[in-house]
Amino acid sequence: MSPLLDLAGIFVFALSGALQGVRKRLDVVGMAVLAFFTAVGGGVMRDLFIGVQPAAFRDMGYLLVPIAATAIAFFWHPHVERAMPGVLIFDAAGLGLFCAVGTAKALHHGLAPPHAVFLGVCTAVGGGVIRDVLSGERPTLLYDRQLYAVPAMLGSTAMAVLYALDVRGFVATLSAAVLAFTFRILAMRYGWRAPLARGISGPR
Amino acid sequence: MSPLLDLAGIFVFALSGALQGVRKRLDVVGMAVLAFFTAVGGGVMRDLFIGVQPAAFRDMGYLLVPIAATAIAFFWHPHVERAMPGVLIFDAAGLGLFCAVGTAKALHHGLAPPHAVFLGVCTAVGGGVIRDVLSGERPTLLYDRQLYAVPAMLGSTAMAVLYALDVRGFVATLSAAVLAFTFRILAMRYGWRAPLARGISGPR
Amino acid sequence: MSPLLDLAGIFVFALSGALQGVRKRLDVVGMAVLAFFTAVGGGVMRDLFIGVQPAAFRDMGYLLVPIAATAIAFFWHPHVERAMPGVLIFDAAGLGLFCAVGTAKALHHGLAPPHAVFLGVCTAVGGGVIRDVLSGERPTLLYDRQLYAVPAMLGSTAMAVLYALDVRGFVATLSAAVLAFTFRILAMRYGWRAPLARGISGPR
Repeated sequence: MSPLLDLAGIFVFALSGALQGVRKRLDVVGMAVLAFFTAVGGGVMRDLFIGVQPAAFRDMGYLLVPIAATAIAFFWHPHVERAMPGVLIFDAAGLGLFCAVGTAKALHHGLAPPHAVFLGVCTAVGGGVIRDVLSGERPTLLYDRQLYAVPAMLGSTAMAVLYALDVRGFVATLSAAVLAFTFRILAMRYGWRAPLARGISGPR
Repeated sequence: MSPLLDLAGIFVFALSGALQGVRKRLDVVGMAVLAFFTAVGGGVMRDLFIGVQPAAFRDMGYLLVPIAATAIAFFWHPHVERAMPGVLIFDAAGLGLFCAVGTAKALHHGLAPPHAVFLGVCTAVGGGVIRDVLSGERPTLLYDRQLYAVPAMLGSTAMAVLYALDVRGFVATLSAAVLAFTFRILAMRYGWRAPLARGISGPR
Repeated sequence: MSPLLDLAGIFVFALSGALQGVRKRLDVVGMAVLAFFTAVGGGVMRDLFIGVQPAAFRDMGYLLVPIAATAIAFFWHPHVERAMPGVLIFDAAGLGLFCAVGTAKALHHGLAPPHAVFLGVCTAVGGGVIRDVLSGERPTLLYDRQLYAVPAMLGSTAMAVLYALDVRGFVATLSAAVLAFTFRILAMRYGWRAPLARGISGPR
């Protein structure tokens, strides 16, 4: 994946963390903490689970981009909130990119495809879970009934299949990311849901 | 420990995670997330603290067994809930196995016995804490006044003593596990409690 | 840093964890869990992020000191609570020491200064966040409007600057720690605050 795309994903996720900070009326330090861990949390989990040092603590972009997102949310959060439908589209793009990149990194380190798919999903959804736990909320991933992990699972699976077929690099990443992105957008548009256990009628 | 016993422990813990998901009315994806992290969370913590790559991301069983437990909870959760007293017995068995296995792995990697005991307890109780934090609950381990970490501590200590006496392998694991299991069952049966700080009258 | 200073920091943080356990009316096991993870949680995060085995599971002091702090809180918590203004001063000292030590360790392992500063702050504030998440509270770090991460950031930055100037060892650690300590005490004394996002009026 081009580093630029990677940083775009970091930026969108950091923005969602910083905005959560604003909604919770945290000070600028709390906003930055949420921005950083929302953006890099999933990737850090993936790297620890793979058994390598988290890339987030080697690369300047992973530190600077969340700071920039915090500054933007600090000064212009009403505008960003108003642009939320647009932000959700970027978030779907981040989801797509992160699941593709995370799966590829796990495969590259020799994990079996099913585990690589799992870690791709962790990369994509882990940051949001950490954001919610840190800000004292029940994880949106579990309680919001939207499809969020499922599109990531689809994109990660596509990535693993392409990898097995020896389609790698930019083309594979982009294809898998676009698939996850499209599925996520359709799921939002048409309110697709995953089933509840038999006889259960909705989250409480 | 025979892999079969290991997978049995994973299965029981995964079932407890999936059932928590049903109680919280999560969809099938949320159930699977809780099932997986309840089952492997303690072992992942242990491996990260030992400094090795978590075994959960190398072995297919650790992925398939939680999926099977999720499926069972999805279709038959009322029957499983009704069989809860039985499930608690299996949970005690999982507790016993996990503390023994966790302690042995830490000793095997050269940790000192006190740290190995500590990591054995983490292996046994860590998944439940992660389950509760992810589902937005206060950790049962801390707030429920039952003895849960103490039986694990006993089993882990027994394992470390046997290891020092050069009793290893299946016999040692099973002895330590049975000790922790028995103590846990007795603690439940007779309502044994750990003391509260002087002058304090109960959790709130 | 002299090991004695290090253990003093561990002790103060462990005491804050054990007292939180008393306030939540946890039993002695719950108190010990909070004491341990409050004391070593930040350092464990730092070591995982650096990519080395957490030191806390190699050193007996990291295990014994939290146990001692738990015993003290168990028997004499009313006296300790009454001495809280004093405890807060020790906590500020722990904050200073931990940010300095954490930054130095990260630099020593070849991380770039900005990442080392970040990990110094994690070392200093991470344990408190884990304490709050485990005990089912919203993290004080984010929701309490006191300056806590900012003094750590100042001390970590000082440490990184001194390191770049080849001032290392005891003198550097102590200077950085005293700087963070002093700033933290002044921030408490004068109620200094970090700014909220534009147009936001306070935490909720």
